[in-house]
Amino acid sequence: MIKIYRQYTEFKRRENNDNLEEKRQRVLEIIQQVRMNGDKALLAFTKEFDHVELSSLRVPVEEIEQADQKEDSAFVSALKEAAEKIRSFHQKQKRESWFSTEEDGTILGQKVTPMDRVGIYVPGGTAAYPSSVLMNAIPAQVAGVKEIVMVTPPNRDGKVNPHVLLAAKILGIDEVYAVGGAQAVAALAYGTETIKPVDKIVGPGNIFVALAKREVFGQVGIDMIAGPSEIAIVADENANPIYLAADLLSQAEHDPMASSVLWTTSESLAEAVQLEVEKQLQQLPRERIARESIENYGGIIVVESLEEAFKQVNQMAPEHLEVMVEQPFAWLPKIKHAGAIFLGTYSSEPVGDYFAGPNHVLPTSGTARFSSPLNVDDFIKKSSIIAYSKEALFEHGKKIITLAEKEGLHAHGKAIAVRLEGER
Amino acid sequence: MIKIYRQYTEFKRRENNDNLEEKRQRVLEIIQQVRMNGDKALLAFTKEFDHVELSSLRVPVEEIEQADQKEDSAFVSALKEAAEKIRSFHQKQKRESWFSTEEDGTILGQKVTPMDRVGIYVPGGTAAYPSSVLMNAIPAQVAGVKEIVMVTPPNRDGKVNPHVLLAAKILGIDEVYAVGGAQAVAALAYGTETIKPVDKIVGPGNIFVALAKREVFGQVGIDMIAGPSEIAIVADENANPIYLAADLLSQAEHDPMASSVLWTTSESLAEAVQLEVEKQLQQLPRERIARESIENYGGIIVVESLEEAFKQVNQMAPEHLEVMVEQPFAWLPKIKHAGAIFLGTYSSEPVGDYFAGPNHVLPTSGTARFSSPLNVDDFIKKSSIIAYSKEALFEHGKKIITLAEKEGLHAHGKAIAVRLEGER
Repeated sequence: MIKIYRQYTEFKRRENNDNLEEKRQRVLEIIQQVRMNGDKALLAFTKEFDHVELSSLRVPVEEIEQADQKEDSAFVSALKEAAEKIRSFHQKQKRESWFSTEEDGTILGQKVTPMDRVGIYVPGGTAAYPSSVLMNAIPAQVAGVKEIVMVTPPNRDGKVNPHVLLAAKILGIDEVYAVGGAQAVAALAYGTETIKPVDKIVGPGNIFVALAKREVFGQVGIDMIAGPSEIAIVADENANPIYLAADLLSQAEHDPMASSVLWTTSESLAEAVQLEVEKQLQQLPRERIARESIENYGGIIVVESLEEAFKQVNQMAPEHLEVMVEQPFAWLPKIKHAGAIFLGTYSSEPVGDYFAGPNHVLPTSGTARFSSPLNVDDFIKKSSIIAYSKEALFEHGKKIITLAEKEGLHAHGKAIAVRLEGER
Repeated sequence: MIKIYRQYTEFKRRENNDNLEEKRQRVLEIIQQVRMNGDKALLAFTKEFDHVELSSLRVPVEEIEQADQKEDSAFVSALKEAAEKIRSFHQKQKRESWFSTEEDGTILGQKVTPMDRVGIYVPGGTAAYPSSVLMNAIPAQVAGVKEIVMVTPPNRDGKVNPHVLLAAKILGIDEVYAVGGAQAVAALAYGTETIKPVDKIVGPGNIFVALAKREVFGQVGIDMIAGPSEIAIVADENANPIYLAADLLSQAEHDPMASSVLWTTSESLAEAVQLEVEKQLQQLPRERIARESIENYGGIIVVESLEEAFKQVNQMAPEHLEVMVEQPFAWLPKIKHAGAIFLGTYSSEPVGDYFAGPNHVLPTSGTARFSSPLNVDDFIKKSSIIAYSKEALFEHGKKIITLAEKEGLHAHGKAIAVRLEGER
C-alpha cells in the first residue's frame, strides 16, 4: 500500500550508503587491463562477464542494415516518428557562433564547434531500450558530431539486442561494438586496436559502467551519472485518481529503488489514489518491482496549499514533475528544480519518455538543482575569440600590466609592455 | 634553451602518471570528518594544514567592506574596469527560456533557471589571484545566482589575501570563509553548522582540492578539473619574435609543468624566437619556474605550411591559442579545439587573462576537445516543458503504448491507455 503522509519530513527519502570502494578497485583494474592489452582484454572480459567468446567486436554493418526486417511495422514506424519528433525539438536547442565589435576595433566572440567523436553506452538485457538510443544519439547528431559510435554488451549467443540495432539503423549509426561494462567505457576513453577513442561518453549503465565513467572523466567528457528514476506529481482536487495512480506506477515499475511521490491538497483524492494504486498494481506484469518501489520510496503527501507543495517539490528537485492542477502554467514560475515538467492532464510522463520530443535523459537524485536534461549543448564546445585592436591595447595596456604585476606575474606584464614599447 | 623541432611527434607532451591513490584516501578521510564533525573538523584541519587557530570561519563583513582602503587606486580602478568588461562579455552569453507551439495544441519548451547557491574556491598563497575571483563569480552573477559564497585558506596570521577580498568587495560578495583545501570543498558540498551547502563548486585549487571536487561530484556540480596551463602560437614569417617570446614566457612563468609551443613556417623566425626567449628569461623574477617549463615542455615546431600547423594544434587542443599570421580570421574555420583563440598581433594572451572580457578559466590538457571556457551556462540549468494536448494524445497515444510495451514497460503503456479509455 502506498503511504499517506501529513508532513514531507516524515517521508523517507532514498539514501545511497553503498560502499563502492571494492567495486571501484575492480573497475580501476579493468581500465588498466584495457589500456595495456586493448582488444585482447575486451574479449577476455566479454568471456568473463557476458559468457560468450567473440571473434570480433564490431557488429557487422549488414546486421544493422537488416535490423528492421524481423520487426513489426507498427513498432518500426512508431520509433521512426519518435525520432523525428525528438530531432525537431532538439533542433531548437542549436546555437550559433557569435561575435561583437567594439568601437576601438576589437572583436570578441564565441565559436561553437561540435565534438568530433562521441560514444554511446547502451545497456544489455532487459534495460536495452531503443528509446534511449534515440535520446542519446539525436542531440549529438543535431549538434553536428560526425562520428557517433555505440557500445552494448552481447547476449550469450554473441548478438546484441535487435531493437537497439533497429534504433541505430533509423539514425544511420553503423559503428556498433558488442562490448559492455567498464571495459567498454575504458575502450571508448583510451582506444584499442579496433575502437578509436572518443571525446565524450554518454548513456546509462550499471554501477560498474557508472564507476568507470567517473574514473575516465577528464580523459573524456561524460554525462551525469544517473541514479534511480523519480516522479513527483502535484495534484489538486480535480485531478483524476486513475491517471495519477497509473503515472506513479509507470515510474515505480522501473526499479525497486525508483521513487514516486504525489503531493495533493485533497484528502479524498489522496485516499482515492491510494486505493487505485493498489488496484492497478495487481494488474502489472512487473508488480513485484513496482510494489517494492511504491512501498519503500513511494508516498502521498497531503498539504495545506499548492504553494506549500511546490516548495517541497523544489526541495526534492525531482527528475520528472507532473503538474495536475487546474491552471498548470500559472505555477511554472514557482518551479525551480526539476528535470522535465509535465503540465496538465494529458501530459503523462511516458509521453516524454518516448515521443513528445524533449529528452528523457534527465538529472536524478536531486541533481536537477544544478544539471539539465541531455541536450545539444552537451555535444558542442565553445571557444572564446579575442581579436584585440592596437587602439585597445594602447588604451588599456597599462591597466593590464598593473593587474599582472599585483599578481606577481611579471612575464604577463612584459608581454603587454613589449608591444607598447615596440610600437612607439 | 627552448628546443626547435621539425616534427610535432618529436615534441614530448606532458604525461600525468602520478599515483594519486594515497592522496585520494586522505581526501576521502577529510570529507568524512567534515561530514561527521562539521565546523569542528574545519577548524582542526585549518590548524593542521594552515597552521593557524581560528575562532570563527567567516571573514567579518567589515573586513571586506574596507578591503579597498589600503590598496593603491590604479589597481582598484583597473580591477573595477576589468570586472565591467568581463560582465559585459558574459551578458552576451545569457539565454532565455523558450517554448514552441504545435497546431494540435501541444506546447514544448525549455525553462532556464539559475542555480540557487554557488561556492567559489580561491587558492591561498601566491596563487590567490583577484582576477580569478572575477572570472569565477561574474558568470554566476550574470546567470542570476543569488547566493555566491567564497572559501579561501587563511594565512598564518588567520587573515585571507586582501586582494581577494578587494575583488569580493567589487563584486558585492560578502559571504567569505577562511577555509581551504579538501575540507573547504567538503563543507561546500555537505554543509556544516556555519556553511550552508551549495549547488555547485567552481574555482582552481591544488591537487587535494581537485581530488575533493572529483569526489563530491554528483552531490554538487563542479567545473572541470584544471591541469597546468598551456599556450600554442601559430606564427608566419611576419610575426615579431620579441612579442612571441614574451607570450611564450607569460605562460611558462605560471608553473614548471606549463607548456608553451610555437608553430611557425619560418626557420629564421624560429631561431630569432629561440634567442629572444633566452634573453627575456634572464630578466624574469620567476626565471627558475619559467626556465624549467620552457626546457621541459616548451618547443618551437617548424612546419611546411600553416595548414599543417593548425592540424597539429587541433591534436594538442590547447587551452590558449594565439594566431599571429597575416590573415588570422581566415584560419578560424580550421580551428576545432582550443579554449580561447587570440587573433592578431595585439591579442597577447594576458589581454584575455585580465581584461578583454572572455573568461580565463579554460579547458586544459586537451580537454578543449569536449569542454568550454567557464561561462554563464555553467550556472543555470534547463528544465524541459511538456504540455501535451488531448488531441495530441489521441493522435499519438497508441504509438506510445507500442513503444512502451516493446521495452517491457507495461505500466508506462497503461498511463497512456487509462487516458484514452477514460475520455471515450
